[in-house]
Amino acid sequence: MSVPMVVLVLELVGTFAFAVSGALLAARKGFDLVGSLLLASLAGLGGGVIRDLVLNTGVPNAFAAPQYLVPVVLAVLAVFIRLIHEDRLRRTLLVFDALGLSLFCVMGATIAHEVGLNPIAAVLLGVTTAVGGGTLRDVVANEVPQIFNPRGVYAAPAFLGAGATALLLEVGLFSAVSAVVVAMLVLTLRLLALRYRWRIPLAVLKRG
Amino acid sequence: MSVPMVVLVLELVGTFAFAVSGALLAARKGFDLVGSLLLASLAGLGGGVIRDLVLNTGVPNAFAAPQYLVPVVLAVLAVFIRLIHEDRLRRTLLVFDALGLSLFCVMGATIAHEVGLNPIAAVLLGVTTAVGGGTLRDVVANEVPQIFNPRGVYAAPAFLGAGATALLLEVGLFSAVSAVVVAMLVLTLRLLALRYRWRIPLAVLKRG
Amino acid sequence: MSVPMVVLVLELVGTFAFAVSGALLAARKGFDLVGSLLLASLAGLGGGVIRDLVLNTGVPNAFAAPQYLVPVVLAVLAVFIRLIHEDRLRRTLLVFDALGLSLFCVMGATIAHEVGLNPIAAVLLGVTTAVGGGTLRDVVANEVPQIFNPRGVYAAPAFLGAGATALLLEVGLFSAVSAVVVAMLVLTLRLLALRYRWRIPLAVLKRG
Repeated sequence: MSVPMVVLVLELVGTFAFAVSGALLAARKGFDLVGSLLLASLAGLGGGVIRDLVLNTGVPNAFAAPQYLVPVVLAVLAVFIRLIHEDRLRRTLLVFDALGLSLFCVMGATIAHEVGLNPIAAVLLGVTTAVGGGTLRDVVANEVPQIFNPRGVYAAPAFLGAGATALLLEVGLFSAVSAVVVAMLVLTLRLLALRYRWRIPLAVLKRG
Repeated sequence: MSVPMVVLVLELVGTFAFAVSGALLAARKGFDLVGSLLLASLAGLGGGVIRDLVLNTGVPNAFAAPQYLVPVVLAVLAVFIRLIHEDRLRRTLLVFDALGLSLFCVMGATIAHEVGLNPIAAVLLGVTTAVGGGTLRDVVANEVPQIFNPRGVYAAPAFLGAGATALLLEVGLFSAVSAVVVAMLVLTLRLLALRYRWRIPLAVLKRG
Repeated sequence: MSVPMVVLVLELVGTFAFAVSGALLAARKGFDLVGSLLLASLAGLGGGVIRDLVLNTGVPNAFAAPQYLVPVVLAVLAVFIRLIHEDRLRRTLLVFDALGLSLFCVMGATIAHEVGLNPIAAVLLGVTTAVGGGTLRDVVANEVPQIFNPRGVYAAPAFLGAGATALLLEVGLFSAVSAVVVAMLVLTLRLLALRYRWRIPLAVLKRG
């Protein structure tokens, strides 16, 4: 499987996952079907649009290539007909968001590497792509973004995933298999962090 | 009237209308005159800046061409001296916002077509241009954006307007007259939706 | 000292100052260390990324050049170990924010001039660069941005600073010294405005 093909699959599945998180948030907030479509688009396509704007490689995929709309529309419909719905603990949204996060950190870092950026820049762009769509989703819906939720480590697994991807690409071990392994590790870390409410130190050290 | 001329007129009038909505929101929230100028700029010029960033066609018009500031400054002054003010039902803001929406969906789709994007991309960019400035206005002022207000259909008329514009451009019937007709239809739909509180289905189907 | 060198110093010091404001806001809101890093990055690098996206000059510096991360990481650590902390009146955040504002309005206007924009566009981009990072910081942390706080003039000093910079560049008097003088004047104005709660007229004239 060629690198562009791996990237396309990661992006389409990740777009679907993030779009589900957007449609579920729209449902929770009582938005209508068009609001759901807009919030799902923002969540699913926002990270990729930011990535393309930063890379400055022409019209972003989400606008130029209509196929990226397919997973968004499918996600909105799946939530509309309750094929996907929130469980009692409201974890469904976070699980789909975690899946998008894990796929997009690998995808973003890989595209940055393909375009010729240095490894540090690839890590930064991977993290930005991974957290961008979810942050736009939360900001526009007037919620404090998940990235700032101190219960449950969120951006740190994306950093690790983008870092591992950049490393694999540097040493020539990147493949469809290794990409999926990294994404699944990121997903596992994020879900464990949610389940066991892992915390990392706060922004300020507590006084002795 | 040439297509670029039509686009320029739509953009200047639409910028004024959105800028009025921004200045009225600044007044409602107790911001000062500079805050009003910034919020009016964001509302009036934000959609166009997003459009230009997506199209990747150099420095966005709002920055490169000082004439786009004229409608913004006029709007801020008109609100400052109470030439334009909110009515009792607080509908003035929404009416100006609706005017901007109707002009920008036509303008955005037309520019996307001029740049050579496919019709679906033109519709997407038309909607993004139309809802972008108002969404930035609301997000930055810490309000839930109008696009998510389930009372009164908002983005759907912009979808129709951008779609009609893309169709007219494809079949060669786009002109100053047909552009204005489409925009007026969008405006009428939006105002009727507001007046009669039209609703579309929510993001999730109600259980039987 | 060459113009690019002046710009680099202004940008690195301004990035540190804005990043401190982001890390202090993260601390105030109870975010964790990674949240602090993200909010500090947004505050410190956001204005420059917007500037580079508008100028359309390739991958923004914040992504392409790893050295811009150094002041961000230093700022996060300085807040983490309480080397920099809020005073009782919570003024520390605003003082660092003011320092970033004063340096970035000069830096943004200078870069716009270097790229060949006209003086009005240089002023607009200077102001956008100066207020952009802080506004992203506040919006993403779900606060009403400082630019809209009617107590204490905020964007107006940045307008004056960017205007003075554009004027100095036009008449050939821009230098490291004059750049610092303008920045210090902007900083002084902003701090005086905070100290004495200067106000400018509200968005709407009060009735007689």
